[in-house]
Amino acid sequence: MLKVGIYGASGYTGQELLRLLIRHPEVEVVALTSRKFNGVPVSDVFPVFEGLIDEKFMDASPEDVAGLSDVVFLALPHGVSMEAVSVFLEAGKNVIDLSADFRLRDIDIYEQWYKEHTVPDLINEAVYGLSELYRDDIKAAKLVANPGCYPTGVILGLAPVLKEGWIDVTSIIVDSKSGVSGAGREPQIGTLFCEIDEGFKAYKINQHRHIPEMEQELGLLAGSDVKIFFTPHLLPVNRGILNTIYATLRKGVSASDLIDLYRGFYKGEKFVRIYKVGAFPNISSVKGSNYCDIGLTVDNRTGRIAIVSAIDNLIKGAAGQAIQNMNLMCDFREDTGLELVSLFP
Amino acid sequence: MLKVGIYGASGYTGQELLRLLIRHPEVEVVALTSRKFNGVPVSDVFPVFEGLIDEKFMDASPEDVAGLSDVVFLALPHGVSMEAVSVFLEAGKNVIDLSADFRLRDIDIYEQWYKEHTVPDLINEAVYGLSELYRDDIKAAKLVANPGCYPTGVILGLAPVLKEGWIDVTSIIVDSKSGVSGAGREPQIGTLFCEIDEGFKAYKINQHRHIPEMEQELGLLAGSDVKIFFTPHLLPVNRGILNTIYATLRKGVSASDLIDLYRGFYKGEKFVRIYKVGAFPNISSVKGSNYCDIGLTVDNRTGRIAIVSAIDNLIKGAAGQAIQNMNLMCDFREDTGLELVSLFP
Amino acid sequence: MLKVGIYGASGYTGQELLRLLIRHPEVEVVALTSRKFNGVPVSDVFPVFEGLIDEKFMDASPEDVAGLSDVVFLALPHGVSMEAVSVFLEAGKNVIDLSADFRLRDIDIYEQWYKEHTVPDLINEAVYGLSELYRDDIKAAKLVANPGCYPTGVILGLAPVLKEGWIDVTSIIVDSKSGVSGAGREPQIGTLFCEIDEGFKAYKINQHRHIPEMEQELGLLAGSDVKIFFTPHLLPVNRGILNTIYATLRKGVSASDLIDLYRGFYKGEKFVRIYKVGAFPNISSVKGSNYCDIGLTVDNRTGRIAIVSAIDNLIKGAAGQAIQNMNLMCDFREDTGLELVSLFP
Amino acid sequence: MLKVGIYGASGYTGQELLRLLIRHPEVEVVALTSRKFNGVPVSDVFPVFEGLIDEKFMDASPEDVAGLSDVVFLALPHGVSMEAVSVFLEAGKNVIDLSADFRLRDIDIYEQWYKEHTVPDLINEAVYGLSELYRDDIKAAKLVANPGCYPTGVILGLAPVLKEGWIDVTSIIVDSKSGVSGAGREPQIGTLFCEIDEGFKAYKINQHRHIPEMEQELGLLAGSDVKIFFTPHLLPVNRGILNTIYATLRKGVSASDLIDLYRGFYKGEKFVRIYKVGAFPNISSVKGSNYCDIGLTVDNRTGRIAIVSAIDNLIKGAAGQAIQNMNLMCDFREDTGLELVSLFP
Repeated sequence: MLKVGIYGASGYTGQELLRLLIRHPEVEVVALTSRKFNGVPVSDVFPVFEGLIDEKFMDASPEDVAGLSDVVFLALPHGVSMEAVSVFLEAGKNVIDLSADFRLRDIDIYEQWYKEHTVPDLINEAVYGLSELYRDDIKAAKLVANPGCYPTGVILGLAPVLKEGWIDVTSIIVDSKSGVSGAGREPQIGTLFCEIDEGFKAYKINQHRHIPEMEQELGLLAGSDVKIFFTPHLLPVNRGILNTIYATLRKGVSASDLIDLYRGFYKGEKFVRIYKVGAFPNISSVKGSNYCDIGLTVDNRTGRIAIVSAIDNLIKGAAGQAIQNMNLMCDFREDTGLELVSLFP
Repeated sequence: MLKVGIYGASGYTGQELLRLLIRHPEVEVVALTSRKFNGVPVSDVFPVFEGLIDEKFMDASPEDVAGLSDVVFLALPHGVSMEAVSVFLEAGKNVIDLSADFRLRDIDIYEQWYKEHTVPDLINEAVYGLSELYRDDIKAAKLVANPGCYPTGVILGLAPVLKEGWIDVTSIIVDSKSGVSGAGREPQIGTLFCEIDEGFKAYKINQHRHIPEMEQELGLLAGSDVKIFFTPHLLPVNRGILNTIYATLRKGVSASDLIDLYRGFYKGEKFVRIYKVGAFPNISSVKGSNYCDIGLTVDNRTGRIAIVSAIDNLIKGAAGQAIQNMNLMCDFREDTGLELVSLFP
Repeated sequence: MLKVGIYGASGYTGQELLRLLIRHPEVEVVALTSRKFNGVPVSDVFPVFEGLIDEKFMDASPEDVAGLSDVVFLALPHGVSMEAVSVFLEAGKNVIDLSADFRLRDIDIYEQWYKEHTVPDLINEAVYGLSELYRDDIKAAKLVANPGCYPTGVILGLAPVLKEGWIDVTSIIVDSKSGVSGAGREPQIGTLFCEIDEGFKAYKINQHRHIPEMEQELGLLAGSDVKIFFTPHLLPVNRGILNTIYATLRKGVSASDLIDLYRGFYKGEKFVRIYKVGAFPNISSVKGSNYCDIGLTVDNRTGRIAIVSAIDNLIKGAAGQAIQNMNLMCDFREDTGLELVSLFP
Repeated sequence: MLKVGIYGASGYTGQELLRLLIRHPEVEVVALTSRKFNGVPVSDVFPVFEGLIDEKFMDASPEDVAGLSDVVFLALPHGVSMEAVSVFLEAGKNVIDLSADFRLRDIDIYEQWYKEHTVPDLINEAVYGLSELYRDDIKAAKLVANPGCYPTGVILGLAPVLKEGWIDVTSIIVDSKSGVSGAGREPQIGTLFCEIDEGFKAYKINQHRHIPEMEQELGLLAGSDVKIFFTPHLLPVNRGILNTIYATLRKGVSASDLIDLYRGFYKGEKFVRIYKVGAFPNISSVKGSNYCDIGLTVDNRTGRIAIVSAIDNLIKGAAGQAIQNMNLMCDFREDTGLELVSLFP
């Protein structure tokens, strides 16, 4: 059994990692850290684990966790993660970092959107952990930078048309809607029940930190610079992201053509489902699963397409994708522990 | 006291009309029709009226209701409404029609998106009831076609930039999200609680019947044909529509410039609120009120703007706007009975 | 115009007071205090007031607010309120205190459930502000202790049967369910959206601070000591409390008898609605209104009754009832500013 | 591989059975019937199965399904189920019936609460499928009557204290709150999103059909007649039932004593979790799992206890328990396919 540590395990992402890993047949969770809940039984903080986990959270150093684990998942805030990552790598451990610290290849862009990077040399060692696009690199990686929740669905949604040059790269508009778990478990007025329930709003229009991450990957797919217009919104649901992506076609194609392109591009991919003509995903159809569902349409009147992609932000957008990456790194079957059927209703 | 009838009063819109009209100081509700609930006390169907309304729904003919009322609101399905409207007009009554039957000036377009129009001669008598744009015409009208819920927020959101020619009219993309009350009170699987709760989806992309209505009015504002890309989505909330509208600028302006334009355009308007730089509306800030709130931003990198408009679909998007129109037609102060402060949380 | 101050105005209750008072025809709001949001425009903290209120929150002393106001509402935490109340009373102002500080007539019980009481002499001056039971005392009062949200619905629900001696006073079980706004606007993990949404739980069984308040008033109605079993639960809704109250009958009566008793007891009461046989309230029928709705049933098999009462916790359970009390104290019509029709859906 | 048929598969229960069975390692689903969706791909009706199930619903006779299957689950309406059950039994198939048709041992009581029973002889062959109480009988059964959703949590909640005679059997009050999926997928006004969202109500007080089922089983546990007062409520959530159960103690015990009793009674049970002193379950801690979680408290002041039990109504309250029964009948490990960790948030 592979020994796994979760560093920073008391947020929603850490909890989801734990939920999936305790049912993963190849691994054993050996360390769960939390500064805030040091010494508190995990099942007191997350009652879903009552009777399943006897362990307590511990406030352990990266060195200590490195001593216990073969693979480490980091679910820490941006900026905090990079320091710990270097310890784990030095100790020779495989690392999957769920923060943004190693997602951006250009350190200047990282420092412009986030903060000073203290271990810039490690950036080149990191592989961007979108399994469907970087499978071979991930298999060989020691450090995987797990993608952000918005980028996951947006990049998977745009990859085929960008790769094939079917759309005008200056025309991309991304209108995203996310469930509230993406905002984390730190108490703040903005994510109180009464502020969210029966509400809906846009936030950080063109200012969200996932923009440079998306533009980096979309640019690599297109083979040229890509600038997007990005509007995230906050949905009154626990889980799920739905992205509605608009772009202008460079040639006349039908919805069927588009769907054929996507089905070809994602052939054999277990976690990408392309819908038929006229069908579009609902976040309730991916909730609790590792799927990215994609629906497509063409508007001949305006020459534009709409791509609708949906994921569970805590699974394909975080913990599930991280485990998918671990499976690749450790040579397990890619869907081990991820054969989840969405929970509906 | 003005005598008012509500023809088709047992849906959410009819109920909202009644809720507002029983507190309107200048009117008395004299007729409430419903085929389905004929003879049933209104407070049995809608317990909010317990102790406030003793009346029963009646299955009365338009002729009968015309005999009782000075003004009639019609909250009937499209296609059914037109027949009743002609009866009320013939009887010399003022009519506010909340269906789509008289919103489209071009009968061919109506028949293409809806069905055969049986009283085409009346189309020319109808005034499109967006009070902020057609105030003087509404004052003189006998028949007002109350705007659709999506068009209300979209047209108010785009009017200033279209009128001033600040945007490329071929670039408009409208990404709208609506609460479920917009789908009505007829039982269907798609609007059951379990189908909507914790879900979110796009539907009828580029196929929604509000498209020709929006294009008609946006074209009049622009002075040229306008084609939009329109994606409606269904939000797991009772009330509220938020429209995120994208367009390409024809000249360089700042967010402040844009806001100044809007504040000027809507100067003196009681029911339009323009937000300051960096602020965007939440549907929970308009819920229960007749406001249309608008936030604006400019993205210099892509040369695009985003306009975010929010309304309560049952009030400014239906019943409230209908009463605003009645106030204009009857020479009451425009905000009579509509001085509603949003209910939050 | 009566000059009104709200001391502690940045929580949900303060906001609701403001929402109602700006539409109250007899008053003018002259002071809104908040330590946390000192200097911040009210409409930045609560966008519902955009365009309606230009004022900013101020961090003013009780003395300063006393200098500006004729009547003061206090929406402060328990223990903090008592100090401010004494200042306002000394300055000769009418005070409506929405904290628990003056609700308990027995200082020992107060100190056992809350904390040390620093102005015990004022307790005797306070009138318990349940308008339906203490109307005459409230009219003459300088200090009104506004009831807690749970006690309001529970006391109104039990008053008739206790007063008439129809039930065994040792048999009362109160199973209450409250919306989340009752927990306030202070950030904490327990009231984050993701902790509440799709969840439901009991909390503080037999340990909630509203127990002594209910037992005091129920005992006065019964003319003897009353001990209740009280289980509060947290509902995933913004507003509303539903109480399901169980008791054993001391004599055989039918549901009709019970309803007749209640209709007689509450005759002429504007804000209490007694449902007919077989009908029970839904919190969505009182949301946004000052009503307390009550449904009643008798189970002959077990000799027990169930009383179901529903209120909007922020209105009849807090701000609305406070204004009802102000109306009584200031000799306005009791329902002035409170002619609210519930917002549904 | 065991061949399994689901007769009546297009409701929420049928869908949940399918969701769990396609991941069950010992079975293969060979038939899915639906009259309404005959010929429609399952993944069109339930998009969660996109890419997982290629089959279509079929409108097959019980005889046809019997020809294909070794075990049949029936998720049909009460009254319809009994006819089909007899066909499956005659064909020698194992049957798990999720309707109420074979739950009541007394045919008179069945006919009083439901309708005429057309195959009364089969009632004696049925075993009540509460695995924790009737494990050995279920192992030997050909026909299992799967318990109702309310009874499951209520009976598990009361079994230990009734069996041990710790409570007065005339004192039981059950206050239950259920998510909306319990009401099924048939369109009706009462379960539309807008009727449920932000609402909460009691319904069918002392008139719910699960009462005789609970009284039958509680009486068997107590060894004497039991009459309960039962109030079900409708919660605005998809899944979950929370029961708050009140009873009077016959002797003085502490919460610890009570918890010890329950831990002893349920020793070795995989799907019952007893909480520690002061902790009570939240439905969000059982959502998506087969657990029944139970919290306990004693009130010395009134001599009463409260038992709080929580289940996922579609899993432990229906499909999960049905599979637990199948596992027993077919000699699989009891938790095969049911090692589900709750989905939170």
